[in-house]
Amino acid sequence: MSASAVLVPRSRAGTAERLARSAATAAGAHIATSEVPDWLDRHRRAVGTVVRRIPFAELGHWSFAPDTGNLRHSSGRFFTIEGLHVTRPGAEWQQPIIVQPEIGILGILAKEFDGVLHFLMQAKMEPGNPNLVQLSPTVQATRSNYTKAHGGTEVKYLEHFLDPARDRVLTDVLQSEHGAWFYRKRNRNMIVEVDGDVPLDDTFRWLTLGQILELLGRDNVVNMDARTVLASAPAVPDGTRALSSDSGLLTWFTGERARHDVHARRMPLREIAGWRTGEDSVSRADGRFFRVVAVSVEGAGREVAGWSQPIIEPVETGIVGFAYRVFDGVPHVLAHARVEGGFLDTVELAPTVQCAPSNYAPLPAGQRPPFLDAILNASPDRVRYSTVHSEEGGRFLNAESRYLIVETDEATTPTQPPPGYLWVTPGQLNWLAGHSRYVNVQARTLLAVLGTVTRGAGAG
Amino acid sequence: MSASAVLVPRSRAGTAERLARSAATAAGAHIATSEVPDWLDRHRRAVGTVVRRIPFAELGHWSFAPDTGNLRHSSGRFFTIEGLHVTRPGAEWQQPIIVQPEIGILGILAKEFDGVLHFLMQAKMEPGNPNLVQLSPTVQATRSNYTKAHGGTEVKYLEHFLDPARDRVLTDVLQSEHGAWFYRKRNRNMIVEVDGDVPLDDTFRWLTLGQILELLGRDNVVNMDARTVLASAPAVPDGTRALSSDSGLLTWFTGERARHDVHARRMPLREIAGWRTGEDSVSRADGRFFRVVAVSVEGAGREVAGWSQPIIEPVETGIVGFAYRVFDGVPHVLAHARVEGGFLDTVELAPTVQCAPSNYAPLPAGQRPPFLDAILNASPDRVRYSTVHSEEGGRFLNAESRYLIVETDEATTPTQPPPGYLWVTPGQLNWLAGHSRYVNVQARTLLAVLGTVTRGAGAG
Repeated sequence: MSASAVLVPRSRAGTAERLARSAATAAGAHIATSEVPDWLDRHRRAVGTVVRRIPFAELGHWSFAPDTGNLRHSSGRFFTIEGLHVTRPGAEWQQPIIVQPEIGILGILAKEFDGVLHFLMQAKMEPGNPNLVQLSPTVQATRSNYTKAHGGTEVKYLEHFLDPARDRVLTDVLQSEHGAWFYRKRNRNMIVEVDGDVPLDDTFRWLTLGQILELLGRDNVVNMDARTVLASAPAVPDGTRALSSDSGLLTWFTGERARHDVHARRMPLREIAGWRTGEDSVSRADGRFFRVVAVSVEGAGREVAGWSQPIIEPVETGIVGFAYRVFDGVPHVLAHARVEGGFLDTVELAPTVQCAPSNYAPLPAGQRPPFLDAILNASPDRVRYSTVHSEEGGRFLNAESRYLIVETDEATTPTQPPPGYLWVTPGQLNWLAGHSRYVNVQARTLLAVLGTVTRGAGAG
Repeated sequence: MSASAVLVPRSRAGTAERLARSAATAAGAHIATSEVPDWLDRHRRAVGTVVRRIPFAELGHWSFAPDTGNLRHSSGRFFTIEGLHVTRPGAEWQQPIIVQPEIGILGILAKEFDGVLHFLMQAKMEPGNPNLVQLSPTVQATRSNYTKAHGGTEVKYLEHFLDPARDRVLTDVLQSEHGAWFYRKRNRNMIVEVDGDVPLDDTFRWLTLGQILELLGRDNVVNMDARTVLASAPAVPDGTRALSSDSGLLTWFTGERARHDVHARRMPLREIAGWRTGEDSVSRADGRFFRVVAVSVEGAGREVAGWSQPIIEPVETGIVGFAYRVFDGVPHVLAHARVEGGFLDTVELAPTVQCAPSNYAPLPAGQRPPFLDAILNASPDRVRYSTVHSEEGGRFLNAESRYLIVETDEATTPTQPPPGYLWVTPGQLNWLAGHSRYVNVQARTLLAVLGTVTRGAGAG
């Protein structure tokens, strides 16, 4: 017996095409792209925030727990910094890690103006951003925000993301964040379309995807949360052929996940080996990787009192790069199945290179990370993308990386790459980014701009 | 610059169609389906295995750790039974849980005979199977088996699954197992095609998918490992329309995963509340759910010495059922986003009903699991599938459930279901089962037979 009901097409054709049209629209209906940096500057001056490093003893409400040495807030809210013990065959280490089990919402509102999707972006201050104010999603909310478990101030526009009609949702996927610094963190990456009027104040602007892509070519303008949400959105398929079939890619990925025998256990921060706690930092004796430090934040806006918090500070600018080649007319990037101790499940697809290079600078070429030299030594005419972006400014202080897409060749990056690496098309990466835990946050930043780099490459 | 290279189609058309042809082939090239139960019987008699319950004190090499009370093997191998503390808003419990972090391989070899794919199935004894010997995948291997970390006997045909050519792999995906009994367990579900001769002994037979599907209609013939591998294989898309679009389904699933705030932590078995350890079982004071018991296994075949092991024994036969309706000519089942404490990530899609009914028998209708009565009280002409299967016989003793697919109606299962439930097509479930951790192991058993139930339903 068949009941009558309104069925819909399984494939919602049109979403990717509408996003592509917005990406191709360089001029928005509301603000010129060239005015966005001025607008961000204006907010930078208006909020007048001052971020100071302070010793741990001056943190308000934050302290090291007497038993474990874990750093935590007296209310039990926000996050903790604990220890992590990671073991895998041939390697073992301990490190501090941020534990924040809540699933937050990173949400961007979308609306059509003149037939083109625009995205509501926010000029948002985060204390860890090197320039404090960057272009951010409409909403960045923790679960405590949206369930109001702890009271707290209203998050603007949050209501659009709490229970949206399913056919107004253009993207909604849980994505991992930095597995080297976060323990199993994941956030909900959403784009939700609205029709009606959306009242704005001066901290919000509607931009086309084309405008945001242009701004992604400038250092430290588009924040990490905006980049990951945009990378999660569906792209128009970029072709039906690739070096590996989709099922071959999944087979390879399953094999990579299965062959890495990684175990990570939380442990007391005070007991981790190789790290020492001083008055103003938890750092490695050899100075590598990152430090846990404390900052005070003053003048963060009229509505918010100052605060202080612990924050993670990498010791130098990172290098994050995809090797890029065109095979038989089809663009590919070289993905790396990368282990990070904080991942929920062993490996995710990362860029070809992702490291802090001075950690390896004293090493002879054979012991440096694979492909690092191919990325760093590329001649300028082969660098298709090179921009400095910083990571989440609420948890990471001046965590800048140079993001690169570099055209390489058979000599440096062979068609048959070594174990742990596979050539994939941007379309395959976008397909996987539609599901959780395939594509890591650094690869998602590069995925967000890959389309602008590869467009027209098919003629190559 | 474009390098010349051999590209392949991203979509490997043909695999699903070849599997469908095998599913439609009722007679195999090697053994009549009717002879399979006799063949299994013969092995049952030949191995002559005797499984006896024993007190924990008689376990060889297994004992309760003095500090934690966890049950473990003296070698550190196999698995442990520990405690688990699960908290979620409004509920909290502690329970024993099997911890076995290794990723095993469940692998089926496939080969064409007379142009039709056949699958190499094994008559395999597992001590927890109610009838000991069932039809099993070609290979069931733990990581210790395949890395030979501990020596151990050779696993037949394992070499086909260790590093297969990617274009010979028909399925390869990590799937979860029982989240109520296993802590974050996952196995690699593989089907690999071979061309050459495969030497067989009498414990292996080539069967078409049609033959296996027919055997899935008999109680306790096809083991769980075989069911989950077959459910993971791609099916021919069953249509382009559904009550929810694919992206709407993902949006709903993301929302379900995000709204359940579940935390599970391992704890010492000896400290779990509500359970008591006796001489021959760890069980709940109220007798519900399951027990941990011990068995000795003698006469398991000429090549294997006897052994003893702990094993989990549910207290009764479970009920696992999908409500099934045809909307506007398109078959759907009602999926449930179900929390299980051992899941790696909060929820997976489960059947409409999955429970041990007597746990709820004393409860008034309003407090019984949703839809249980709709499944249990269905008139016989609406029961499309009803077969008893047991769960993994290496870890679970007589863990039988009645698996049901029941045609329901608007009165019992409305088109707009309550929160936590969504109507999906078999094709959508199959699509999601191609990725990890969307479809739980009970839903995969029903997914394996859904095609036989819904075929032709479009005419309804």
